[in-house]
Amino acid sequence: MSHLWSPNIRALTPYIPGEQPRERVVKLNTNENPYPPAPGVGDALRNFAIDHLRLYPDPTSSALRQVLADTYRATPEQVFVGNGSDEVLAFAFQAFFQHGLPLDAPDITYSFYPVYAKLYGVELRTHPLTEQWEVDLEALGADKSRSGIIFANPNAPTGHAHSLEAITALLERVTDRVVLIDEAYVDFGATSAVTLIERFPNLLVTGTFSKSRSLAGLRLGYALGSSELIEGLKRVKDSFNSFPVDSLASAAGIAALEDPQHFQACCDRVITTRERTRQRLEALGFEVLPSKANFLLARHPRHEGAQLFIGLRERGILVRHFNTAELNEFLRISIGTDDEMDSLMEALEVLCT
Amino acid sequence: MSHLWSPNIRALTPYIPGEQPRERVVKLNTNENPYPPAPGVGDALRNFAIDHLRLYPDPTSSALRQVLADTYRATPEQVFVGNGSDEVLAFAFQAFFQHGLPLDAPDITYSFYPVYAKLYGVELRTHPLTEQWEVDLEALGADKSRSGIIFANPNAPTGHAHSLEAITALLERVTDRVVLIDEAYVDFGATSAVTLIERFPNLLVTGTFSKSRSLAGLRLGYALGSSELIEGLKRVKDSFNSFPVDSLASAAGIAALEDPQHFQACCDRVITTRERTRQRLEALGFEVLPSKANFLLARHPRHEGAQLFIGLRERGILVRHFNTAELNEFLRISIGTDDEMDSLMEALEVLCT
Repeated sequence: MSHLWSPNIRALTPYIPGEQPRERVVKLNTNENPYPPAPGVGDALRNFAIDHLRLYPDPTSSALRQVLADTYRATPEQVFVGNGSDEVLAFAFQAFFQHGLPLDAPDITYSFYPVYAKLYGVELRTHPLTEQWEVDLEALGADKSRSGIIFANPNAPTGHAHSLEAITALLERVTDRVVLIDEAYVDFGATSAVTLIERFPNLLVTGTFSKSRSLAGLRLGYALGSSELIEGLKRVKDSFNSFPVDSLASAAGIAALEDPQHFQACCDRVITTRERTRQRLEALGFEVLPSKANFLLARHPRHEGAQLFIGLRERGILVRHFNTAELNEFLRISIGTDDEMDSLMEALEVLCT
Repeated sequence: MSHLWSPNIRALTPYIPGEQPRERVVKLNTNENPYPPAPGVGDALRNFAIDHLRLYPDPTSSALRQVLADTYRATPEQVFVGNGSDEVLAFAFQAFFQHGLPLDAPDITYSFYPVYAKLYGVELRTHPLTEQWEVDLEALGADKSRSGIIFANPNAPTGHAHSLEAITALLERVTDRVVLIDEAYVDFGATSAVTLIERFPNLLVTGTFSKSRSLAGLRLGYALGSSELIEGLKRVKDSFNSFPVDSLASAAGIAALEDPQHFQACCDRVITTRERTRQRLEALGFEVLPSKANFLLARHPRHEGAQLFIGLRERGILVRHFNTAELNEFLRISIGTDDEMDSLMEALEVLCT
């Protein structure tokens, strides 16, 4: 604690990401993709003229935004890009949620939302998940005196995804404030709400290249919404960092988007492995929440989450354990390759007998 | 203007960076380095395992921070890195200047400072430069009831740099609040205050890889200061984006730092070209402010800045013109290669006769 820090900074409790170990482990703790990025990404990076790095990037990232617009049948004016979807989410808090009114969110969701709220002085009103561990859209949209609504779909770390019909019904009820849907995990079996941005100018959908596009190391995120909302994000970005997306990340992102076959094949493999893993976990006695994401949230009736986490760690397998009252019993297991999941299951078979 | 935007966002006037043209021009408008990055940067990028991009970067950028620490004879705990020094500066505004007290700055300086101030609700108290176009350190440090002091050394867009003695004298007077010295241009002939961070725990020095390291396209910036200040920046960063520095940028930054010969040779060439250009401009009748940066600020007694800017632009030469009362007469000319400066001088010879 320092007297030189701004008062608000003294009160922060920063987000803690999953470990990035240096030893060789089976890494199932940060929802990374087990498969490499599209081959074109390597070509784009190898062919990039190094001399060009002495120049600033395009501040508007127009080429990347155009390809994103083509991918999601939108216009470039409906697309924003940033240095990871974390940055895009942070900008959205500043652009849309600093109205002096509380922001609605689920109580169990991406644990960065309360951190942003604190950083930007936004009061968060959290709502419990339903008994089926689903985001309670009725509760989230019930009170009009709010600055907006934020939730992840599929939600993290539960994996449940609402249907497009349920999302549409929410947007029909809530038209006066921003509804931010964080679709970091949407490509693993859920339905994107991007198709609704034309109809609902208060809908902002965020996405990332870190999961389904295998580019976590490059930090690329985006948002799609009405040009009115995108302009709001752009105002924050242009008051923060003229060039948040670097030249290599842009080139890699474009190459990743231009290979829909590779993208779909990787997503399909993850989904197949997820369902296979779910069955095996259930056979071992685990309760596994239904997941449309690249992870599973599972608990065992006779084994504590923390104990299993430690046991797996000792065997060189990293999963995520959240030390909160609601999630304490669970493990969140990222979906790796079939071989990695075999290692996990072998270890769990020992630990759960 | 949208009712969905936060009130503070409606009032923003974002920073406008210099143009990034797509046509072939002589580009002397954004203070980029005319020489390529160190050869090792290309090697580091070509040898980077593309598959590794599916994993998140090291959130603490420890390898890059270690090499920066070695370079500046500091410890890794005294080093912070970010996605361009713009991001580092933004974090510093949040970490140190939100005390509800005004922040002291020169009136003519990097024009992003007032933008940050507005974004973070910090009142900026600006002080005129001296008659010699120098930052008035006496005025900046005079009032104790301030949250801090920020200025660039060398200053932009004037190019004047204060001596280490003058900086030390300021720090001896101001010990109770953060003094942020932005050293984006320090490597072109000024003296860094980094050697003072051990003695003055309230001194934060920021730097960038965009100028002297020829990596503007990769977005890498840093700060050096007491571990107390670095911890403050880290708290903001960890509440904003766990991984602002991507894996490729880290690798490239390390390679750039590991080639001090290339770095020094490029800086020396820029300095030589700058002095040659200064003499030629003076021979043409320009008043040229003394500069320790990779640009010159110059005005002609008989030709308006805006007219010269337009005339140069028509001839395919981009320089920067600031449309403010104080700087309206001037051109800010980045130092390019000798060939580029020859093109500039040929055009100016036509325009100024």
